[in-house]
Amino acid sequence: MTSDPVNPTAPDFEPPAPPDADVRAQAQARQLLLTKPTGALGRLEELSVWAAACQGVCPPRVFERPRVVVFAGDHGIARNGVSAYPPEVTAQMVANIRSGGAAVNVLAEIAGAGVRVEDLAVDADTDPSVSAYKVRRSSGSLDREDALTHDEALRAIAAGRAIADEEVDSGADLLIAGEMGIGNTTPATVLVAALTDTEPVAAVGRGTGIDDEGWMRKTAAIRDGLRRARPYLRDGVGLLRTVAGADLAAMAGFLAQASVRRTPVIVDGLVVTASALVAEVLAPGAREWWVAGHRSTEPAHTIALRHLGLDPILGLDMRLGEGSGAVAALPVLQGAVATLSRMATFDQAGVSNNAAVDGEPEPV
Amino acid sequence: MTSDPVNPTAPDFEPPAPPDADVRAQAQARQLLLTKPTGALGRLEELSVWAAACQGVCPPRVFERPRVVVFAGDHGIARNGVSAYPPEVTAQMVANIRSGGAAVNVLAEIAGAGVRVEDLAVDADTDPSVSAYKVRRSSGSLDREDALTHDEALRAIAAGRAIADEEVDSGADLLIAGEMGIGNTTPATVLVAALTDTEPVAAVGRGTGIDDEGWMRKTAAIRDGLRRARPYLRDGVGLLRTVAGADLAAMAGFLAQASVRRTPVIVDGLVVTASALVAEVLAPGAREWWVAGHRSTEPAHTIALRHLGLDPILGLDMRLGEGSGAVAALPVLQGAVATLSRMATFDQAGVSNNAAVDGEPEPV
Repeated sequence: MTSDPVNPTAPDFEPPAPPDADVRAQAQARQLLLTKPTGALGRLEELSVWAAACQGVCPPRVFERPRVVVFAGDHGIARNGVSAYPPEVTAQMVANIRSGGAAVNVLAEIAGAGVRVEDLAVDADTDPSVSAYKVRRSSGSLDREDALTHDEALRAIAAGRAIADEEVDSGADLLIAGEMGIGNTTPATVLVAALTDTEPVAAVGRGTGIDDEGWMRKTAAIRDGLRRARPYLRDGVGLLRTVAGADLAAMAGFLAQASVRRTPVIVDGLVVTASALVAEVLAPGAREWWVAGHRSTEPAHTIALRHLGLDPILGLDMRLGEGSGAVAALPVLQGAVATLSRMATFDQAGVSNNAAVDGEPEPV
Repeated sequence: MTSDPVNPTAPDFEPPAPPDADVRAQAQARQLLLTKPTGALGRLEELSVWAAACQGVCPPRVFERPRVVVFAGDHGIARNGVSAYPPEVTAQMVANIRSGGAAVNVLAEIAGAGVRVEDLAVDADTDPSVSAYKVRRSSGSLDREDALTHDEALRAIAAGRAIADEEVDSGADLLIAGEMGIGNTTPATVLVAALTDTEPVAAVGRGTGIDDEGWMRKTAAIRDGLRRARPYLRDGVGLLRTVAGADLAAMAGFLAQASVRRTPVIVDGLVVTASALVAEVLAPGAREWWVAGHRSTEPAHTIALRHLGLDPILGLDMRLGEGSGAVAALPVLQGAVATLSRMATFDQAGVSNNAAVDGEPEPV
């Protein structure tokens, strides 16, 4: 990969190869042989074909070791009153996730996924078991100062990359990024507004539930951050340094590296998807390795999903973060994979397939 | 329950009691104590509250023995060319479901549900293990003759009721009805059009994938069936006799009896939801015990869901039947229940809840 002309010290991600096109074609052909009308499983069929192409094998395997990594960090902008919750909640929720009491833990147990939480920039001392990759405490207030130094941004991206490598090397065959950080929908919305050329008022949402005055403060912060972000639209590191934070930067590195490692990802809500937009800048084509778990109530999330060409699996009006929407969608993806890998074919089951002539589907 | 004045021999369902209102209130109150912003789990919160009210206990239990029952039957109207598949596929698919090769089996395995298939009216001899409740072979062609005799309709309803009782008595704590029957979206669409006062052209869909000529034949059949159904809009047995079939009649009995037995149900696609409309006629209030698993591509399904006030969990453009959409949604419901039963409270986790004052949620 040639280095970024705007920023010669950008992290040098190998260009991700796309999922396997031959296997994708095999999977599409196999869908026609299964004991059901062509297309009758709707989006499950698309998901199963994508999973097969990512795994490079048809029939695909039901994912055996899905892993959720929750990236935690505080944000200087939270001191501006852009969230309904005080910043100390970030550290408290990291402890809650560690001990298995948060929504993501409970949903992951139902879905058969493991959960790991990493403190990248919590504004408190957290347990050593979750702070090995800590870059700093909190971030600069993005409305008036850089969130990170250039070196911090690079270290955070490298941390996310290392975490992805660790997970894949330990056998993870599907990754989910989640996040925890009071105030983090503000930098996320700035990133989405910048990279999709959207006005702040069209992108700003209520986060975890701010009132009207908080909404005005948040919109002003996003407007100021957006002005500071605009020079860096083609410079992923510059964007992360200027208006993101170590947690979002690490997620961008994690999502980019997942694609380099040919490992599929379920993208979660606004904050993860904002980081995914930057990951696509860092490693163009990475998005081929992603599906969107859900559509949150945040307007910027829908804007970011559309920009990435991702159609979410669930639409349940969730707005929690932590990876909760992605992990809620995981069993649907597993079901999709299972249909392609475990259903009987017409031949195997002795079922007539008069509706398909010479392997061609009927018009639907 | 007073007997139906239109039909004094209607099956006498006890009026179903609603889910427990006190427990519903407890569940809503508990949602405010969990370590997440109020409402941040979106529809998962509603689902968890409903499940608690159905179980009559808060926190609710993750469902331990969800059961899918697939009601199979052929339809005389299929000889009119209203389906893309020939009628012999019904018996072949019953065998496929018995041996675990169909989509519903594979999805149920992922979701942790058991599957049972029952032949109510397949136009072939099926295995004795699935034909104990068989009422007859196929049905009259609903465009010009009654689908069933009055006695057959009563026997089919009683069969569904007995199957629900067997399942609940064997420990099932959640039921899913599914169906298999070539041509069965035609009677289902007639029932929906009749009970929701909808014109055939607004309700008719492509089923498993018919072409334009088939669509015209199907629409004509629905129009003729609707004319025959109209005198029986308040007479569930009359409707089932005139335009349904033993499979749909049994499902109506099954769904009504589930509510009598205080057992929640995930409703599937068009054919099940059409039967649910009749179940609500047989046992008014039964719908309080149901959630909708998904929204299929059939227009009549959306019309029926709206009439029942059911908002589907998934929207994945599925149109297979078998209970596949309901069982795909089961893990989402289980996740919802798990959040209410297993998440830590703010007190337990030592997490600050400044956004909730005196137990009242902030405006969102």
